[in-house]
Amino acid sequence: METPGQPKEQSFEQRIPDGDDRLRRVCSDCGFVDYENPKVVVGAVATWGDKILLCRRAIEPRVGYWTLPAGYLEVQESAIDGACREAWEEARAKLDIDQLLAVYAIPRISQIQLIYRARLVSPDVSAGPETQELDLFAWDDIPWNDIAFPSVHWALNDFYAVRDLTSFAPRSNPIGETGDM
Amino acid sequence: METPGQPKEQSFEQRIPDGDDRLRRVCSDCGFVDYENPKVVVGAVATWGDKILLCRRAIEPRVGYWTLPAGYLEVQESAIDGACREAWEEARAKLDIDQLLAVYAIPRISQIQLIYRARLVSPDVSAGPETQELDLFAWDDIPWNDIAFPSVHWALNDFYAVRDLTSFAPRSNPIGETGDM
Repeated sequence: METPGQPKEQSFEQRIPDGDDRLRRVCSDCGFVDYENPKVVVGAVATWGDKILLCRRAIEPRVGYWTLPAGYLEVQESAIDGACREAWEEARAKLDIDQLLAVYAIPRISQIQLIYRARLVSPDVSAGPETQELDLFAWDDIPWNDIAFPSVHWALNDFYAVRDLTSFAPRSNPIGETGDM
Repeated sequence: METPGQPKEQSFEQRIPDGDDRLRRVCSDCGFVDYENPKVVVGAVATWGDKILLCRRAIEPRVGYWTLPAGYLEVQESAIDGACREAWEEARAKLDIDQLLAVYAIPRISQIQLIYRARLVSPDVSAGPETQELDLFAWDDIPWNDIAFPSVHWALNDFYAVRDLTSFAPRSNPIGETGDM
């Protein structure tokens, strides 16, 4: 089955298109440029009172480790809508988004993460299909040794750093950190 | 020419992969899922004193109209690095990034925009290949009737709204606006 408007796979070559300055996959028949784009992850540090929602991953990578509700932004979706959708899919949680907590970059995997600070509308949460179990953790009870990804550590620490601020500039990667495991 | 690790175009079909809940392009031979992802635009409202840098577009769409230095984030690039690269490519401008001004969504074209507030390191700027001309505009001299895109209007107005704040929560689309022309 061919996709209308897209060239056949076998006609692609690596070259620098006119007016560009880096190698792209270009169709040698029609000139179509198959730009590679970074991926956007959206998620939230969501709280009920002073407790933070964490989910134990039921899927690879890092199955069994704890993470924030987060996932890939879909096409035709705003970042806030995506963060709310992921919280619903993974934790059956409804969010009241407060503000953007952080923009992280994981260059090795070309990922940009937009993590929001949010309040749970209710403490009535439950595991979705990608979640083994979930819980609301007081700061001192967070399972720090079983966190899935470096960026989850960053988000938790950034959340803590701004906990007394009603409004703040979003945070970035800790200096020198790239998110590699 | 085939690309290693990617299925042939003719084997793709539209179906909902196991464990998913929406239609994707899936290879019927090997199960490879060709996820469609939103695109990330990074840019800046960059100032020298109280003047704002705008560029007249030399490329479609909206050739001849004024815009902020901005463009697609590349793979393996942070959002801040991308905003600085675009300012260099379009305006030979070096930026001192202050903080994230706004996260906009243009759902129709699956675009997420991250626009920073920045200071020019020097007023020595000049048009890159995608720019016809550029200038530093006082607020009252901005060519409002010749702005390229709705999101440029949003960014300029958001910049103005927070001009006296040293730190603030990033702004979003004006309520009800989707960026359609």
